[in-house]
Amino acid sequence: MTPSKDTVLCMSLAGRPGTFGVRFHNHLYQQLGLDYYYKAMTTADLPAAIAGIRALGIRGCAVSMPFKEACMALVDELDPSAAAIESVNTLVNTAGRLKAYNTDYLAVRQLLVEHALDLAQTFAVRGSGGMAKAVASAFRDAGFANGTIVARNEKAGRQLAGQCGYGWQAELGSLRPALLVNVTPIGMTGGPEADQLAFAAEAIAAAQTVFDVVAMPARTPLIQQAEAMGKPVITGLEVIALQALEQFVLYTGVRPTAEQVAAAVAYARAT
Amino acid sequence: MTPSKDTVLCMSLAGRPGTFGVRFHNHLYQQLGLDYYYKAMTTADLPAAIAGIRALGIRGCAVSMPFKEACMALVDELDPSAAAIESVNTLVNTAGRLKAYNTDYLAVRQLLVEHALDLAQTFAVRGSGGMAKAVASAFRDAGFANGTIVARNEKAGRQLAGQCGYGWQAELGSLRPALLVNVTPIGMTGGPEADQLAFAAEAIAAAQTVFDVVAMPARTPLIQQAEAMGKPVITGLEVIALQALEQFVLYTGVRPTAEQVAAAVAYARAT
Repeated sequence: MTPSKDTVLCMSLAGRPGTFGVRFHNHLYQQLGLDYYYKAMTTADLPAAIAGIRALGIRGCAVSMPFKEACMALVDELDPSAAAIESVNTLVNTAGRLKAYNTDYLAVRQLLVEHALDLAQTFAVRGSGGMAKAVASAFRDAGFANGTIVARNEKAGRQLAGQCGYGWQAELGSLRPALLVNVTPIGMTGGPEADQLAFAAEAIAAAQTVFDVVAMPARTPLIQQAEAMGKPVITGLEVIALQALEQFVLYTGVRPTAEQVAAAVAYARAT
Repeated sequence: MTPSKDTVLCMSLAGRPGTFGVRFHNHLYQQLGLDYYYKAMTTADLPAAIAGIRALGIRGCAVSMPFKEACMALVDELDPSAAAIESVNTLVNTAGRLKAYNTDYLAVRQLLVEHALDLAQTFAVRGSGGMAKAVASAFRDAGFANGTIVARNEKAGRQLAGQCGYGWQAELGSLRPALLVNVTPIGMTGGPEADQLAFAAEAIAAAQTVFDVVAMPARTPLIQQAEAMGKPVITGLEVIALQALEQFVLYTGVRPTAEQVAAAVAYARAT
């Protein structure tokens, strides 16, 4: 779209702005002929940045680390998706009123349905950060009862487990859950553990399904190992695509087709 | 340019956002291959908007009515172009530090030089608003000594005349200045006096040069009348093109060629 005086601005706030959102959203705006523009930003002054979003009429804002918790006190209303886990990844500005959502949570909820996972399955979530909170809460709210939070950080791990009614362990040890979920940076491109497995090979062999929230690369060592063993997998690429799609719908009111979303994801990752 | 995570954002703040800036700047960004994007905005909360510009790292902001005076207290530094006339139309954000300029003033200063006007000429400026302040101050600082402010608003008119060392009159009356300058909305498209002359035909006939700050249309009734009488003219189009160019240079550090500017102006006006 040629920029006009009526172009609607959306943006992201992250400690280290990435390229996925800029490319995903702007590509879809163009494909769908929407007079919108998406801009990645960072800030050293979160309260002023949020006040600026309100004052400048910026329609939507994706919120990433390290702002996901701090922005909660700065908005007007929390959607249940954000309130339940006390973590925000999306702001929607309607006439100066900011409502906060967590589309990571919404995306995981939807993936659990799409992949038709059995609520009676045992599962382990490795991790205790903001994203682990979204994932474990989605499992809890979907009705999964038999979970274990695996986290070296005992305080955060016990807290998250307590919030969700699950157990906590520092290590997986001899536990062999049917569903393994990695929500740590293990296996992430560029990280210190990029070539490592988030779960031991024996645990993967004993599992029925493996879910890795890491999206870069889409095929982490964990996903590769699980696929080699013939296990069904859920990838981080599915999570980021779905959460970005939900943001897109919140900002524009338009729901693109699955084909349009797939094309936008492919475009956004082809950097 | 394809939007990237490093795209630099510039914007405008106006009570009623227009199309000229959006089209002028974005067209030049594209022509020059600059990874910049320009967005027109408005606000109901100027302090939060200015704080947001700082916090979000927005590089530059054009300031229009009714924010030109109020934003002075919200910036870190005033360029002489803004300080001298206590009116701002441009903010430049360098690492969170906001410096305010008035490129209307700078544009008029430059036009007085380009058109090689005689400093000894008598002149009248009709108007006493923010733009009239920029124009009268530019005349004063260029060294024009023999001026009259013509304004029905006696308080504002006398104040501006006093600031510049010029006389004041409510009406032009029998005065026949060599240079006539209109800085009122008379002759502006869509206004209540769109078809009226800002100065009487006899005054135009007696003048040597006619300058109209109204840019829409470029050929106002005043300019048409002056041209019909064979008088050299200076148009509002020259002012807005030049002031937008100076903003462009302040934001990007790049000075386009005269041809590129002319093409961008033509593009910006072709709506």
